[in-house]
Parts: sequence; structure tokens; C-alpha cells
Amino acid sequence: MSEDGLTHLDSDGRPQMVDVSGKDVSARTATAEGVVRMAAETRRLALGGSSKKGDAITTSILAGIMAAKRTAELIPLCHPLPLSRVNVDITPCEDGLRVAAEVRTSGQTGVEMEALTAVSVACLTLYDMLKAVQKDMEIFSIRLLSKSGGVSGDYSASPAEDSA
Amino acid sequence: MSEDGLTHLDSDGRPQMVDVSGKDVSARTATAEGVVRMAAETRRLALGGSSKKGDAITTSILAGIMAAKRTAELIPLCHPLPLSRVNVDITPCEDGLRVAAEVRTSGQTGVEMEALTAVSVACLTLYDMLKAVQKDMEIFSIRLLSKSGGVSGDYSASPAEDSA
Amino acid sequence: MSEDGLTHLDSDGRPQMVDVSGKDVSARTATAEGVVRMAAETRRLALGGSSKKGDAITTSILAGIMAAKRTAELIPLCHPLPLSRVNVDITPCEDGLRVAAEVRTSGQTGVEMEALTAVSVACLTLYDMLKAVQKDMEIFSIRLLSKSGGVSGDYSASPAEDSA
Amino acid sequence: MSEDGLTHLDSDGRPQMVDVSGKDVSARTATAEGVVRMAAETRRLALGGSSKKGDAITTSILAGIMAAKRTAELIPLCHPLPLSRVNVDITPCEDGLRVAAEVRTSGQTGVEMEALTAVSVACLTLYDMLKAVQKDMEIFSIRLLSKSGGVSGDYSASPAEDSA
Amino acid sequence: MSEDGLTHLDSDGRPQMVDVSGKDVSARTATAEGVVRMAAETRRLALGGSSKKGDAITTSILAGIMAAKRTAELIPLCHPLPLSRVNVDITPCEDGLRVAAEVRTSGQTGVEMEALTAVSVACLTLYDMLKAVQKDMEIFSIRLLSKSGGVSGDYSASPAEDSA
Amino acid sequence: MSEDGLTHLDSDGRPQMVDVSGKDVSARTATAEGVVRMAAETRRLALGGSSKKGDAITTSILAGIMAAKRTAELIPLCHPLPLSRVNVDITPCEDGLRVAAEVRTSGQTGVEMEALTAVSVACLTLYDMLKAVQKDMEIFSIRLLSKSGGVSGDYSASPAEDSA
Repeated sequence: MSEDGLTHLDSDGRPQMVDVSGKDVSARTATAEGVVRMAAETRRLALGGSSKKGDAITTSILAGIMAAKRTAELIPLCHPLPLSRVNVDITPCEDGLRVAAEVRTSGQTGVEMEALTAVSVACLTLYDMLKAVQKDMEIFSIRLLSKSGGVSGDYSASPAEDSA
Repeated sequence: MSEDGLTHLDSDGRPQMVDVSGKDVSARTATAEGVVRMAAETRRLALGGSSKKGDAITTSILAGIMAAKRTAELIPLCHPLPLSRVNVDITPCEDGLRVAAEVRTSGQTGVEMEALTAVSVACLTLYDMLKAVQKDMEIFSIRLLSKSGGVSGDYSASPAEDSA
Repeated sequence: MSEDGLTHLDSDGRPQMVDVSGKDVSARTATAEGVVRMAAETRRLALGGSSKKGDAITTSILAGIMAAKRTAELIPLCHPLPLSRVNVDITPCEDGLRVAAEVRTSGQTGVEMEALTAVSVACLTLYDMLKAVQKDMEIFSIRLLSKSGGVSGDYSASPAEDSA
Repeated sequence: MSEDGLTHLDSDGRPQMVDVSGKDVSARTATAEGVVRMAAETRRLALGGSSKKGDAITTSILAGIMAAKRTAELIPLCHPLPLSRVNVDITPCEDGLRVAAEVRTSGQTGVEMEALTAVSVACLTLYDMLKAVQKDMEIFSIRLLSKSGGVSGDYSASPAEDSA
Repeated sequence: MSEDGLTHLDSDGRPQMVDVSGKDVSARTATAEGVVRMAAETRRLALGGSSKKGDAITTSILAGIMAAKRTAELIPLCHPLPLSRVNVDITPCEDGLRVAAEVRTSGQTGVEMEALTAVSVACLTLYDMLKAVQKDMEIFSIRLLSKSGGVSGDYSASPAEDSA
Repeated sequence: MSEDGLTHLDSDGRPQMVDVSGKDVSARTATAEGVVRMAAETRRLALGGSSKKGDAITTSILAGIMAAKRTAELIPLCHPLPLSRVNVDITPCEDGLRVAAEVRTSGQTGVEMEALTAVSVACLTLYDMLKAVQKDMEIFSIRLLSKSGGVSGDYSASPAEDSA
């Protein structure tokens, strides 16, 4: 590990996939969230006035779940991990739509990146589904909410103010 | 196309990959940006005090470029497109690091999603490279800056206030 | 090309990706269908009694669309093709659920395999979504319905008897 | 889990990747089969009169094996699983060619979808390899033959009548 | 473009996917080769004494063809390209087995990397198929044989001495 | 297993993914190396005279690490494996640049192919990064250096003479 705490770089500053072979296999969970800011009218369309119009939401949930499974392909130094659960929720919030993800594994390293990737791709898919009606939507406040399991200890952030 | 302008849903609200076969092949460009908010000390580590420590930046640039090429795998209703250029820049800004991407194609549909995907995955990779030193970084303000080419006309947003 | 008409094998019987570089780029369409045979009660659950329960259908439609885009990764000797439209429909039929797909491209080779792959993966996903309630469902009668465009001429099959 | 037994949908009908973290890791096996119906002459070409012409069969076997490894990418709510064995056999039957697959894992969830995916993609590849000589081939009777391991108990179907 | 001719790095030395949008679409071909050095007995097993034992060769040919289609996923700064032909041949040579690949496209950039990737992955697969009988095989002399099409002119290397 | 020791072929010579379900999970390591032969001037450009010009090296290291994670997608009969460490080094040698990789897992089968794949793709990426200045570079001497763990015993090769 490099002196300065950047574990993904070796002592020469070159990228490496760090050795987790000495770590215990343990249950690990991470949750993350993000918000897509949009006009009230865009949000109304996304949520749908009639029974079937919720498919923009379902499509984005699925995109987030599938992306979580591909995290190690997207993030260069992530370890490939079996995932025992991925859940993505999309709910209305004051600014638009809030995406939340929970990922669980039983493995040697945590699943923060899987949770953040699920949120990011679900947000991108919401943008894609809705961009025909509004181009200036903004994805903001993607962040880790909590992680548990593993040696480095649990972590918990306070809920985002703007997604209440 | 559905009545309400959600082109990715058909008249029953079911998802579809819209027909672009009647559109002209034309030169298209899109630019997008995002910011990873972090402590000044984290940013200093990312940028590196010595010559080789910039690899966190290089790794994130590459992750963004490679993700742009896989946009159609990640975003369910995106059309697969050949890309003629992908450029990702990461520069310091007041809040942390700003990621900007430019994507070009010669095709029948635009590359907004490719630019936004490049930015998102580069931001996620920055988070991954730096999370050992700071867990409460936040990815915010991912948005489309401009698009040109195609029938729907050009689009241009003002630069983000907080990434100056 | 081998003497016996198996274009994917060379004169020694070895697999090859055939040369389409001399073919014209033209508009091409293919349609295919398949049926997942299931109990009436399983079909009722899939279609949903209430507004939101149609998500098994939406999930399978999306899986089919996304699989069409990955046909060249799955079928060893398929040419990679840009797709200008993918549409997947799932409707009730006498035996269970009928999946139909339409794929369009502007390219040098046809999209039969893309349409058949979309149908197959949508059928597999229906099976996955419903297998907790019925394990002896059967995917049957996956077949090409029509193709148009290209030198080899148009092709049209009669609708399957059992999916009326 | 939803009331109606559709485990891949939550109580709101939204798709989810179900939590298997509480399940034991155990040895699991699944077998599946499918048939590609074709003319006798097409089957003769596929099987090859001379030593090297069996490559259509080998290509389809490999496509099935490789697809099994990508099941979790194709089927949206499947868990990624390490696979300890994948075997695909293609043999002549009365109607054409019969594809059978056996998949084993040591994991927290079963491999039915992996076996069915291997069969489906091997059938699609047979179609692709042979479509230059016959377009009206039909993939039919893809079904689970057996599964063992896991809490839900073993399952065994009778061999398909039409693939004798 | 950087001053020193490294086109994949910008003037700051950062990686970029170069802009080919101004280039003409033209027919392009590239050929490459490589050799897997092995004991005569290993080569004999690979080639097979009986009719069906050539499947190690067929498997490696298919792996090479499929890898060519995924070049842009593997090589970070490669442009995604439609391929109009991929051919891989494996023949005995003095030192073991020689792999040759030919790739064609109609595009804005060349297919050298696709040909080299096809050769490399076919060589790796030969190693994998044969490693149970010989671990000290060596992949050597992977190189570009020729390229044609495009502005930079044609290129032709002499055949490798050691693969005669 | 076939009589002749080709474990990836069954008794009929057909490819199979061998059953490792009876093997113990154990710590396994493999190392491999390869050399890209190039002119001294090309090597000088790759290594960079100024601080930022090392990005050709960093890009190739990342490509190798990412490829190791995708080995089971590229090599048809490889088992998918979780990887607990991937390290790729690129150093100057007499003939050009030497690439070395080390891969670790805790699994039921070895990681030779992952190490060889990391080396191969890093070599290909070096070629891609540098081909604008030299087209007749040659990838040679890719080979397994060592493996440990598993029933078949440890293996160790002597360092390549030409990469000193």
C-alpha cells in the first residue's frame, strides 16, 4: 500500500487490484442514494397517471440492478464479487426522483461500489427515459449512505437534506 | 410514440427501442460534466504531489472512456453506436474534481447518454480510487452541457456554478 | 463457402465469420416469435390483476431488447450490427404467453438472429420470473416469422397455429 | 416476497434480486433440454458426412457453454454464480437435433436458468449455422429436466416425448 | 495529438480516444499471426489422430473470432467497429502451431488491433486446451503481417522465420 | 476425461467445461510474463521523458488488470473465478518492455489463464499505444512463470533469457 492511503496505487503510484486474499469472508451490506432533479411535470410523467405508465421507473430499477452485477467490469480496480441481494427503489422527492440501492454479499471486500453503481446507472436510465421531455435534468448527490461488515468498520451517513 | 412525449414507451406504456431507421446519418457531438465533491486533502492526494501519483486521474479517465463504449449495454433502450471520439478531462475545481466528457459519432441518434455515462463512471472510479481516505465524497451535478447534430436541434446549458 | 451450403464453415469445415464486405448496406427487418406454455393460473399472475403486477412482463420485454443488442457476443459467427429498432411484445395466447420481436437495421447482413435472440431471452426471463410458481413451463415454437431486405430475398412464415 | 409467489417482484410489484444471503452454500445441479426441428437433409449436413464437418455441432456446444457463464448478464434478476461444471450435448433425434445441458455449482441458489440459457443459445447457434440451407427450422420444447440441491427440493421432469 | 507521435495521448500525456470523425469510411483489412511453441507430442494431440479430436483447434478458432468482436472492450482506446469478416486459421509449423487471422471492415479506422487480438486469444485458448499435457508452452512472435486501406498507407511485414 | 490427457475434451472429443466441484477451495497463485520487442526510441517514448508521459504504461497495466477479470468470457472453457488480487508490472528490458502479471484466488481451480490473459492484453495495449510510431513491434515469449496451490502441484519456469 502506498504511504498516502491510496490503496489502489502501489508504492510507485501504479494502479493495482489490492490483495484481499487474507481477509475473512463475511456478510457485507452497502446502501447508497442519488437524486435526479427534474421539473414537477417531468416527474408526473415518470410516475404515470395511468396504471401502465410506471414503466420508466421499472426500466430504471432493472438497469440499476443489472449494472450492480457488472460493477467489476466498469470500475477498473474493483474485485469481482458474487452478490446475494440487489434492491433498487425509486421514489418521488421534492426535487424530482430519489434512487436508493441496497447491495449484500458474502465476500472478502465491501460492496460500496456496487451500490453506488446501481444508483448511478438507474439515474442515467431515468434521464434517458425522460430526456425527450426535459434535457436539463441533473443527477446530483450520489453518495454512500451506509456500509457494514468487514474490518474497516461500519459507516453511516445522514440522509441527504434535499431528498426528504 | 406515446402521447405524453416519453418516446421510450409505446402507447401501452411498454418500453421499446425507438425506430431511428428513418433518420439521417449525421455528425453528432455531446458534452457533459460532473463533480466529485471532496476534502481539499483528498483532492491533493488525487492530483499527486509527485510525478507518478496522477494515476488515480488517469485510471478514472480510462474508466470513463471505456464506459462510453458500453453505454448501450448499460442503458436498456439506448441504440448501439459507433463512436468516433471520446475525450474525458478531470480538473480541479473549488469543491473537488470536475469531470468533463465529449463524445462524437456519425450516426442516426445522439450521444448524450454516452457523454453522461462517461462522466458518471469516471466519477465512480474517482470515488473508488479515493474512498480509502474519504468515504463521504459526493458525486453531484452530473448534467448535459451541450449537444449538436440531429433533427431535434442543438442544446446548450450554462456551465455549472459550483464547478468554476 | 463450403460446397454443401453451410456458409459458416469454410471448405475444410472450420468455422469462419463470412465476408459481407461486398454486400450493399440496405434496410433489413426480421420478426420472430416464441411461446412459453404455462398453466392458466401462472399466466394470470404474470399479467397481474392489479396495475403494478405487470412488471414480470416489462422485465422480460427489457431482457429481450437488451439481448438483441448482444447477439454478436452470444452467437459465435454473427456479425456485430448497429440496430435501428428493437421491439418486443408479450401477449396472452391459448397456451400461455406469446413473445414477438421485430428488429431493424441498416447494414450488410440480416437481423434474423437478433430477432430470435430477443425472443429466446424474453422467454427465458418469463420462465425465471414465474418459476417460483410453476417449474414445468416449456418454451416452444421459437421461429422466424419474416425477414426482408438483402440479396437472398424476403421470407415469410405462417403464424404459429398454437399461439392464436 | 410478494403474496402471490412471484419472488422476483416485491410487495409493490417492482422487480428485485431476491436475498439469498441466508441460504446455505450447497452443491446444486440442473439439467435442461431443447430440440431444433429440421429437415432430415439439414440434420445430415449438421452432423457431417466427413470427419471435419461436425464443426457446426462443436460451435453450438461452445456457444451454449459460454452463454451459461453469462446467464446473470442476460436474465435481469439472476444472481451471478461461480459454475463448477457446464456440459452441453447435441445428439440427433427424430425431429432434428436435441440439445441437453448439465450445470453444477456450489452456491446459494440454483442453476436452472444457467442450464436453460445454455440450451437456448446452443439451439440459436444451430439455427445460425444451418439457416443458409433451411429457414423454417423451429426451436421447441426447451424445458428443465431436473434440479437438485437447495431448500426447495429436487425436481424431475419426464423426458420429452418428441425428442426420443 | 502529442508532439512525440503517441496519438493515444493528448498534449498533457493523458489518454484519449482519438477523433476519427474526419476520416473517410473505406475498406480496410489487416492480417496478423502468432505461434504457440510446443512439443511435437502436444501438437500431435492438438491436431488429433482421429476425426473428432480436432476440436481443440476448432475451439481456439472460435475463441479468436469472438475475441476480435470484443477488441474495443479489451483495448481501452480502440474505436468500436463493425467487422465484415473475421477468419482465423491454425496450422502446424515447425515449432508447434501457427495462428493466422484476417479481419476486414468498412470503417474510419483500421483493424490491426482486431487481427492481433484474434491471434492472441486463439493462442491463449490453445494453451488452455493443451496445458494439461504441457505447461511450458510459449506464445511467441505475435505480430502484424499486413494492413491495407486508410490514409496512413499499406503495411506489409515479411512472414516470421520461425513459423515456416 | 479423455484418454489422451486433453481434459477440456470429453471421450468423444467434444469440448466441455470440466467438473471441479469435487476439488477443495484453496489459495492459488499464478505468475506469467511477456515481452513486447520494440526499437529503443519507441521504448523511450513509452516510458516518457517527462512526468506525465508514463500514461501509455498505466493504460496498459489497467487493460491487463481488467482483462484478467474477463478471462472466463474470452477463453471458452475457463471457469469463472473470483480474483483476490491482480498485479501487472511493466518494466524496460533489453528488447523493449517486459510485462509481468500475478493473479491470486481462493477457488477450486487455478489462475494460469488469468495471468496469461492479463499479460497478453497488456502487451496488445502497449502495441496499440505505440503503433503510431512503430508498426513492426512483436509480442513474444508470453509464458507461465509459476503456479502454486491445487492438487496438481506447483510449477515454476526459469525467467526468460531474453527479458533480462
